[in-house]
Amino acid sequence: MSHYPPSILKLVKNLSRLPGIGEKTAERLAMHILRAPRREAEQLSSSIVEVQEKIRLCSFCFALSDTDVCNICSDRTRISSILCVVEQPADMVAIEKSGSFTGLYHILEGVLSPMDGIGPDNIRIKELHSRIAQGEIKEVVLATSTNVEGEATAAYIAERLEHYRVKVTRIASGVPIGGDLKYVDQVTLKKAMEARRAI
Amino acid sequence: MSHYPPSILKLVKNLSRLPGIGEKTAERLAMHILRAPRREAEQLSSSIVEVQEKIRLCSFCFALSDTDVCNICSDRTRISSILCVVEQPADMVAIEKSGSFTGLYHILEGVLSPMDGIGPDNIRIKELHSRIAQGEIKEVVLATSTNVEGEATAAYIAERLEHYRVKVTRIASGVPIGGDLKYVDQVTLKKAMEARRAI
Repeated sequence: MSHYPPSILKLVKNLSRLPGIGEKTAERLAMHILRAPRREAEQLSSSIVEVQEKIRLCSFCFALSDTDVCNICSDRTRISSILCVVEQPADMVAIEKSGSFTGLYHILEGVLSPMDGIGPDNIRIKELHSRIAQGEIKEVVLATSTNVEGEATAAYIAERLEHYRVKVTRIASGVPIGGDLKYVDQVTLKKAMEARRAI
Repeated sequence: MSHYPPSILKLVKNLSRLPGIGEKTAERLAMHILRAPRREAEQLSSSIVEVQEKIRLCSFCFALSDTDVCNICSDRTRISSILCVVEQPADMVAIEKSGSFTGLYHILEGVLSPMDGIGPDNIRIKELHSRIAQGEIKEVVLATSTNVEGEATAAYIAERLEHYRVKVTRIASGVPIGGDLKYVDQVTLKKAMEARRAI
């Protein structure tokens, strides 16, 4: 490592702080950046600082946004009576990509995880209550992950929402589309069997 | 993709221009950068521009350097009568890491590759001649790769250096240390057998 000049060493060090980027990959990226057109390097450099300067959280749903109210919350064509609760901004993006939901979102920014000391006060459950208390929301779709923490978080929220006049639903679990049954794990198969529907 | 705010999209686009970074990885990196401490993002950002501004080629060996003459060429303790010819700066770094060479380097910045239209004038062979013509160099170690282009380049240089009073050597080919013989390819084994030495 010390055989590179200081400015390359600094770039390699900074790049290898990124997740999944080891020292070898960082060296390869640094060599690319070094040889890239000046404009390309400048664009990369400025977009890194810009994303930190510009991005804030939407004051309604807590999605990442360049503006105070995100594109989805400010979109009048979306159904404002359905709220989809997700763990992370990336989950919201995944659902948006699927094109299966036209309501609004609420981002918890985490899941309940007592082992890691994350309780109801550490994720945005209080904010969810305030949104529902305003009375406009008729349905809350719980779209947290289907792992232990996600299920526990969904169960907790469902229980706490019982005294509101709101329908609480959970996204379906089952065999993924295109999945080969023999490769699907037993827990998923059990869930899929239990939730079987008449066709 | 369009479900992210513009500043994130721009960062993802710029990151995915890097080699080996696809859109998914770029998204993950962007999310990390977004959440990283401001100082860390600024350091990454500035080191990208800095590397382009500061790095130049050493005027003797053409290694990447922050200064006009690189650390190795300006190191008086190194043996200036032996010159190691490599393809790329990264090859020089690899040899330096091995600690096996204390002479100076000459970086060709490429190999002869007629298929890609790269001839002797496209790599730094002329510059190699001028360095040798000065008379101080007694040995030239050809450390180009052991693939077809690397071997051809080494053979070409060796032939052209015949009329100088200089010893021309080639790094040894053979079974890598720690290599299991049954996994070594036939060409390498053949080379290793031909180049066997008395012990």
